[in-house]
Amino acid sequence: MQDKATIAVLGGTGKEGGGLALRWAHKGHRVIIGGRSAERAGESAAAMNATLGDDNVVGMANVDAAAAADIVVLAVPYAAQQSTVQEVASGLAGKILIDVTVPLVPPKVSRVHIPEGGSAVEAVQKMLGEGVRVVSAFQNISAHHLTKLDEEIECDVLVCADDGAAGDEVVALAQEIGLRAWYAGPLCNSIVAEGLTSVLIALNRRYKVPGAGIRITGV
Amino acid sequence: MQDKATIAVLGGTGKEGGGLALRWAHKGHRVIIGGRSAERAGESAAAMNATLGDDNVVGMANVDAAAAADIVVLAVPYAAQQSTVQEVASGLAGKILIDVTVPLVPPKVSRVHIPEGGSAVEAVQKMLGEGVRVVSAFQNISAHHLTKLDEEIECDVLVCADDGAAGDEVVALAQEIGLRAWYAGPLCNSIVAEGLTSVLIALNRRYKVPGAGIRITGV
Repeated sequence: MQDKATIAVLGGTGKEGGGLALRWAHKGHRVIIGGRSAERAGESAAAMNATLGDDNVVGMANVDAAAAADIVVLAVPYAAQQSTVQEVASGLAGKILIDVTVPLVPPKVSRVHIPEGGSAVEAVQKMLGEGVRVVSAFQNISAHHLTKLDEEIECDVLVCADDGAAGDEVVALAQEIGLRAWYAGPLCNSIVAEGLTSVLIALNRRYKVPGAGIRITGV
Repeated sequence: MQDKATIAVLGGTGKEGGGLALRWAHKGHRVIIGGRSAERAGESAAAMNATLGDDNVVGMANVDAAAAADIVVLAVPYAAQQSTVQEVASGLAGKILIDVTVPLVPPKVSRVHIPEGGSAVEAVQKMLGEGVRVVSAFQNISAHHLTKLDEEIECDVLVCADDGAAGDEVVALAQEIGLRAWYAGPLCNSIVAEGLTSVLIALNRRYKVPGAGIRITGV
């Protein structure tokens, strides 16, 4: 049996990244929580190990987490996205970077914001160049649901990637933690997934529900 | 009982517009098919009346159709969108214009194209000014399914509008023809619905299915 990939989740001290980290650790991946502070990341890791009754999770500073992992997940706030990528870039060569960033611009988070260049993730691919396979995914999944390990999540994952094989790998990583996921085309299609989060926030407000999501039908 | 609105469908001679026109006529609306040629529009109208065994549908040139209706639907190809709006603008004052346009750029129709200004529909609202309430909707509904009157359509409609009352009216018009529809926020959110069509085309190709769609969950 092939060993499972070690996954670093940068911003894993936050809700969304933490939820993904918990689910992957629960499925037997070695997970590295990356944080701005190694100490805070270590605390998050310890809490997850306690929840799971296991020791799959460790905490490191973002730069060390990225360097030590096979696959790196970027789950930091939009305002910190580019600076975090710059900080960890040297550790990403040859790896898949999964960008979860949603380009929300507070306070108007229910309005779709289109970043310069077309999407938040394309700016990252441009910064890193071809040596890193950047994939966009998980923007629409509620952190709240991720942390409830037994809950079926009623929201599909749209995976966008210019590298088809990398896209397939991320689809498989999503399926492993109980999510329906679809390869939704090249990286430029990511603006739909990124913008959809603002649409879902608009629906939550309008229809007074806690967590609207999407399902792909007809597949 | 209030009389039902008369609806003009510009580009109603095409598949998508024709499908919407047929469904509204079936529900008792007086429908005007608008076409570049009044003659061709008349032929489409006659065919719909024959299908429905009724006489709710008439055909006119686009400019006359827009002027004669209460509500106007724009369902022409992207390349003809702005010229059609310019042609019919004088007949739109005070009305709701429902824009169905998807900014597909052949041959790469499975790649999301972001129009200058952020979305196809915002360009139309800008051209027309505040005197016309522009609403975006129906971009993701397969024409094929619309024409099968008894078929439940497994795809929700995202309705975007800066004018909330106009958005609500379009949600109701969609529900009338058997579609689940949601008010998804301001006009700038329309890029998600517009771009989603390219994502659905990408899914159709990748998963070899004829008509992927979306459902909103958790509402």
